[in-house]
Amino acid sequence: MEFEKLKSCDPSIKIFKENSFNGLVEGITTIEQLKSHHLIFVKDKKYYSKLLDHLKINPADQLVLFIGQSMVEQINQSEFENYLNRFSLIVTVADLSLSICLLSKVFYDEFTKAYDNLNDGRLESQIDPSVLMAPHVFIGKNVKIGKNVMIHSGCNILSGSSIGDDTILYPNVTIYSNVFIGSNCRIHASSVIGADGFGYYYKQGIHHKIWHYGGVVIGNNVEVGACSTIDAGTFVPTTIGDGSKIDNLVQIAHNCTVKNGVIFCGQSALSGSCQVGNFVVFAGKSGMGPDTSLGDGSQVGGGALVSKDWPAGAKLAGHPAREVGDWLRSNAFIQNGIKKNNKR
Amino acid sequence: MEFEKLKSCDPSIKIFKENSFNGLVEGITTIEQLKSHHLIFVKDKKYYSKLLDHLKINPADQLVLFIGQSMVEQINQSEFENYLNRFSLIVTVADLSLSICLLSKVFYDEFTKAYDNLNDGRLESQIDPSVLMAPHVFIGKNVKIGKNVMIHSGCNILSGSSIGDDTILYPNVTIYSNVFIGSNCRIHASSVIGADGFGYYYKQGIHHKIWHYGGVVIGNNVEVGACSTIDAGTFVPTTIGDGSKIDNLVQIAHNCTVKNGVIFCGQSALSGSCQVGNFVVFAGKSGMGPDTSLGDGSQVGGGALVSKDWPAGAKLAGHPAREVGDWLRSNAFIQNGIKKNNKR
Amino acid sequence: MEFEKLKSCDPSIKIFKENSFNGLVEGITTIEQLKSHHLIFVKDKKYYSKLLDHLKINPADQLVLFIGQSMVEQINQSEFENYLNRFSLIVTVADLSLSICLLSKVFYDEFTKAYDNLNDGRLESQIDPSVLMAPHVFIGKNVKIGKNVMIHSGCNILSGSSIGDDTILYPNVTIYSNVFIGSNCRIHASSVIGADGFGYYYKQGIHHKIWHYGGVVIGNNVEVGACSTIDAGTFVPTTIGDGSKIDNLVQIAHNCTVKNGVIFCGQSALSGSCQVGNFVVFAGKSGMGPDTSLGDGSQVGGGALVSKDWPAGAKLAGHPAREVGDWLRSNAFIQNGIKKNNKR
Repeated sequence: MEFEKLKSCDPSIKIFKENSFNGLVEGITTIEQLKSHHLIFVKDKKYYSKLLDHLKINPADQLVLFIGQSMVEQINQSEFENYLNRFSLIVTVADLSLSICLLSKVFYDEFTKAYDNLNDGRLESQIDPSVLMAPHVFIGKNVKIGKNVMIHSGCNILSGSSIGDDTILYPNVTIYSNVFIGSNCRIHASSVIGADGFGYYYKQGIHHKIWHYGGVVIGNNVEVGACSTIDAGTFVPTTIGDGSKIDNLVQIAHNCTVKNGVIFCGQSALSGSCQVGNFVVFAGKSGMGPDTSLGDGSQVGGGALVSKDWPAGAKLAGHPAREVGDWLRSNAFIQNGIKKNNKR
Repeated sequence: MEFEKLKSCDPSIKIFKENSFNGLVEGITTIEQLKSHHLIFVKDKKYYSKLLDHLKINPADQLVLFIGQSMVEQINQSEFENYLNRFSLIVTVADLSLSICLLSKVFYDEFTKAYDNLNDGRLESQIDPSVLMAPHVFIGKNVKIGKNVMIHSGCNILSGSSIGDDTILYPNVTIYSNVFIGSNCRIHASSVIGADGFGYYYKQGIHHKIWHYGGVVIGNNVEVGACSTIDAGTFVPTTIGDGSKIDNLVQIAHNCTVKNGVIFCGQSALSGSCQVGNFVVFAGKSGMGPDTSLGDGSQVGGGALVSKDWPAGAKLAGHPAREVGDWLRSNAFIQNGIKKNNKR
Repeated sequence: MEFEKLKSCDPSIKIFKENSFNGLVEGITTIEQLKSHHLIFVKDKKYYSKLLDHLKINPADQLVLFIGQSMVEQINQSEFENYLNRFSLIVTVADLSLSICLLSKVFYDEFTKAYDNLNDGRLESQIDPSVLMAPHVFIGKNVKIGKNVMIHSGCNILSGSSIGDDTILYPNVTIYSNVFIGSNCRIHASSVIGADGFGYYYKQGIHHKIWHYGGVVIGNNVEVGACSTIDAGTFVPTTIGDGSKIDNLVQIAHNCTVKNGVIFCGQSALSGSCQVGNFVVFAGKSGMGPDTSLGDGSQVGGGALVSKDWPAGAKLAGHPAREVGDWLRSNAFIQNGIKKNNKR
């Protein structure tokens, strides 16, 4: 997309620094998945530092930085000054959060206009001849469906998504656009993968929508239970690793990264942007608060709510989640307190 | 409906007082939405007092009062006696709760018999020519669909409901009868709006059903996440105000009144008859117990369960929900208690 | 199925004792529902003792016992020795849990191969002429649908299931294979009955799937809310008794036994293998941990999580669930502790 078009969406945009910028922006990116010719929102000095670190590993080119007015001073400090030329364009905006809403809409619209999700597009899709498909199924355009896939009645696979070999979709599953499902998965009835992430910026009585078009990427040998939901990421995909198993009525929010072999029991949930290590186990009704992480092999007890980062092997219980031993001691302490009161 | 027909449904009905009653009852109403020519169930003196108050503001005419046998004495007291002529008909029944079950059934049947929800009735509906509709969609009779509405595959809009301009229904959404959705809404896949409220009266080994036909009214600019459910009100609608945003797997029970700009994060829930003020925020997995209220701008933390009324601006956490400061102090008190025990 | 075929699925199978075994195995069973000519997995001495007790009441014949290597010594003890001839065949396997995964797959495949759930099979089903069926409905083979059943648009009834007289399925309901629903039930939109139970055996980096083909049996006069899920049992059905009422977004896991008149409010849940007595009430967001039981008439408060067995009439609250009085005293103890701290 031409930068000039973006400029018209947020009239507060001001050029701060330009270095042989070619005038084109292909999309929005984040530090985790840096891509050349992309725009990146930098909310504070900490994020800027992280960006510089990531650029050492992943030297993306032709980046366009968006910063809030308040960031100008921070970015101008001597420690950062040398790096300013690293970016093709740096612009300031009056309200960075509002700018995210406005610009995400532009790319969302660009992304979805290519897709017609109201007329069946299976003739313009790549469906392996071995696929078994029930009646009452909707297939969008540019969908790719692998060998021996079974699609039950009432399923919807919207434009641009793909399903790997031997995967089974049970009835009434909905796969939104930009969802990539691996091979040998089982997706149970009424589950929904790739719906809008739930993100808003509140300003002056309005919840401004952040438009999510990052989609979802699901590995191989994954099971998704009935009536479970996995939301699209904002700019980069929500991901579920190989061999993970998700029970019924589970919620996985936008931008989560779930590694391999993770177990989600019934009604468990991840808030936005959680990081979950390999072979973590979530017991029923447990959950993680936004932007928290759990190391490999952690176990979260039934109903426990994780409110901060925990290292590998953590065994947690309670709300807020603490080490199981601590939780058991909490309960014992309270029970003892009651007994004493009763004796009085 | 003729009162004589109602009488045959509950043989315990006895005329207590009649004042030029015209013999017709159009429906059941409640004090919040008083309507002329309607029946109203009065369970106790307190409700009767409230009714008299509401009548001053909303002077509904030709009201039929249903009271339990036990209410007769209370209503006969001198303080109320003067008001008895205010009503066209007062009847007593043996068991008011059972009477609610029996009579709600009559009106539910009356209401639903007009609707055929098994044969597509789109030719008897008002669908704007600009509407984009995918295949495998079911539209009942007397449905009204506004301009530029997009309806994805597998959606069902049952008879008598309406969808405002520019609203999008994603795949497999079900809109029951008597649901009114505003303009510019986004309703995500597999969500269900207007299913039966969950209300029963237990008597002698049977859960007698209270039949809900109050429907749902949703404002403009509302988003409803995937696999979320909003139940029909009993006699008057469950309502969701303008600009409210509902995440995935959220439950809103019958008779709730949700004002404007309210945020419901994933897996949060309202029990029946909750009152939610403007711009309240429910974090993930939080909820409200039945018949409770929250004032404008209240915030309910993750997993918190509201068990009583709270004024505007309350910031709550824990179960039962208390002020966040209190909850943090609770946790600190317990942690300190454990530490002392460990030292011993 | 011929035992020889099973043998090829788990190469670790060794014959321990054989007594005039006829070489055929019809399926897998459990002590609760003993059947002749079936295979039974015996994990430990305790289960073996229970099995002997059940055989006194239900003298099933031609049973095939699977035991782990570690059980050999226990089962060989003098107290059990006399009973070994009771079984037609006793085999040992290297890893009993893995054997459950491998053998359940064989029977699952055998069970499902009879069913084609991708081509409409209504002409090979028994559908009463009085049934009212909307468009976009999928009916498998060998389905039985009783008198006056109403099936709304988007429903799926997979092969081999049955629906009793006067039952209503609202839109987009999915009934998997091997589900038996009684008469006069109401099943609300997007709910899913009979999906795979969530059971895995973790070994060396892989979650091995336990294949569930036990189905679901639902009694008469049962209501199931919108977006609720009831999973199939492993080898014997998950059961819901007459007159039970299930609200929205409720999860009932595999192998649960729910008796009559049980109430499940919104977002409540049962883990696997729970036993629920008559007229138990689950308030919103409450749940039971795996393999726990509640006696008749128990009441579980909002958000309470049951972690052990409780007798009839228990009134529970909190996490872990304890008697309501205890929970109230817990809260009072904590509140008093805070007050004292504040005074200091």
